[in-house]
Amino acid sequence: MEKISIIGAGSWGTALAILLSDKGYEVSLYARRKEQIDEMKNNRTNKNYLGDIKIPNDIIITDEIKEAVESADVAVMAVSSQQVRNVAESIKNYVKKEAVIVNVAKGLEKGTNLRISQVVNSVLSDNPFVVLSGPSHAEEVAMKMPTTVVAASNDISKAEYIQDIFSNEYFRVYTNPDVLGVELGGALKNIIAFGVGIIDGLGYGDNTKAAIMTRGITEITRLGASLGGQISTFAGLSGIGDLIVTCTSSHSRNRRAGILIGKGYSLEETLKEIHMVVEGITATEVAYNLAKEKNVDMPITKEIYRVLYENKDVKESVKSLMGRTKKHETEDIFNIDIKQ
Amino acid sequence: MEKISIIGAGSWGTALAILLSDKGYEVSLYARRKEQIDEMKNNRTNKNYLGDIKIPNDIIITDEIKEAVESADVAVMAVSSQQVRNVAESIKNYVKKEAVIVNVAKGLEKGTNLRISQVVNSVLSDNPFVVLSGPSHAEEVAMKMPTTVVAASNDISKAEYIQDIFSNEYFRVYTNPDVLGVELGGALKNIIAFGVGIIDGLGYGDNTKAAIMTRGITEITRLGASLGGQISTFAGLSGIGDLIVTCTSSHSRNRRAGILIGKGYSLEETLKEIHMVVEGITATEVAYNLAKEKNVDMPITKEIYRVLYENKDVKESVKSLMGRTKKHETEDIFNIDIKQ
Repeated sequence: MEKISIIGAGSWGTALAILLSDKGYEVSLYARRKEQIDEMKNNRTNKNYLGDIKIPNDIIITDEIKEAVESADVAVMAVSSQQVRNVAESIKNYVKKEAVIVNVAKGLEKGTNLRISQVVNSVLSDNPFVVLSGPSHAEEVAMKMPTTVVAASNDISKAEYIQDIFSNEYFRVYTNPDVLGVELGGALKNIIAFGVGIIDGLGYGDNTKAAIMTRGITEITRLGASLGGQISTFAGLSGIGDLIVTCTSSHSRNRRAGILIGKGYSLEETLKEIHMVVEGITATEVAYNLAKEKNVDMPITKEIYRVLYENKDVKESVKSLMGRTKKHETEDIFNIDIKQ
Repeated sequence: MEKISIIGAGSWGTALAILLSDKGYEVSLYARRKEQIDEMKNNRTNKNYLGDIKIPNDIIITDEIKEAVESADVAVMAVSSQQVRNVAESIKNYVKKEAVIVNVAKGLEKGTNLRISQVVNSVLSDNPFVVLSGPSHAEEVAMKMPTTVVAASNDISKAEYIQDIFSNEYFRVYTNPDVLGVELGGALKNIIAFGVGIIDGLGYGDNTKAAIMTRGITEITRLGASLGGQISTFAGLSGIGDLIVTCTSSHSRNRRAGILIGKGYSLEETLKEIHMVVEGITATEVAYNLAKEKNVDMPITKEIYRVLYENKDVKESVKSLMGRTKKHETEDIFNIDIKQ
């Protein structure tokens, strides 16, 4: 059976390690921090991320990147999107050329605006690449709750290979050839989660949130299609599915940041309060610039951008969105259809 | 300015009457029950439905259907879907032939399985017809929270006419030519809300709910497209938008009924407990039969049908859904694209 290396022992990496070990694969789990390694080795738990859930004894816990990846048939990148380049560099000399790299991070690289597949490819150009994405809180997967995700690869046989490895009775993997669509859905949904937070902060209700989510995925689809993604991908698990989970979860950092903006905090004050990277804020800037470049209409993203970077009053933004020219619901999507 | 008649003084009819009166239209609001009429006339409230919200004095409250509709330019059907035929019959002799009939009820007629536009057309064949649908809790509209909906008509100029009449700074109306798609989205989403309830009743989490919602709208889209609806309509406000609001609302009767089924109640016990029509249950049967007839794959609807009508154990159903043949995420939608 395949040997699988999971790089990164956050909640998602650990949950996937457990899932794969339960299926009988030889799994190694790599982490950097000494105390975390000790806890996982000695107590077989990863408290900060997965509470009391047991890490099977078969899983090899290691802080040696060479040991973690040198014999792996599959290497799973389970770090935050901004760390992927470093991890790719660190495994470059050890990982087999034919090992499949699976990315489970969502986001775009800051500075370069590259998708994760592009980052990985720029470092590990020989290795096959698969992105695994979809509505999947790690804690729920660790509790064996039914979950569905998508495995996407330019080489569909590699996506099917990963589908076979990860699928079990509570984890259902669909395949999709549209890497760009799956990656953009996962990264850009954070803009909308941030927008839903703003709506919450303003004290508006479910109607407004559903409007932002529905029209939000419409404009993400529009941008994604203009960049070569498939419309159907954005209507799927890694698009609207992940957007639903992120926008309705109270744990989302993006949503929490949005709530502060909705309550009238400035961007600076919000970032000070949240302390961590808010990917929706980065994604807003990237999408705003891409939309301009591609001449794609993204009214929600544009208003969020203006609130963040041009000090527009957030209530004025809602007014601008509600008061635009009257629209035919599907004209934009139709435009995409015609263009393609 | 136009005269508008609202037939039915539930929460939605009353909220729309207030919205239109605030815009300066001459509005009559028809109700049948004597005490409700008295309360609305004397106290200018509709307590059971909208609490303390004030009904403007300009709105004519009446229990005379002739008085309500005879001079109306627009007649809004704001009754439950099963009452639409009766209401259409009752106004037939009074309403002007050129008056636009606007339906805001969601569902299919029991027994005939007709869409509401078909029911209205069978009685009022001369009148133009518009359906107004989307994610819109009445209470939130009455509180002036930003809300977006769709007006659909075979005659797009009539949809635009209704768009102009209803739009204001907190109520944004999009138009769409796809009456069938808008009506099916509104009716069939109740199956999925019911399914989300089952998932809640089983104690599963957000991953599973997002899966049911995403794959649910996929199969509804598949059925809708096979009947002539547009794929993009189901990705819009009256499709996924309304589905999101219904599935995340704790007030949904469909969801409450599903929770009982998830907890192991039988169909009979559930209906006894809920006391009211559960539209998701009716819709499940209709969709199940339509899917069979059209040879469309609707795995979620099929499993809900089996639980309801064939005593299948609900946990077995989840297992069946998770354990089906491995799938390519978009193959079904692609099939539709090819067929069209």
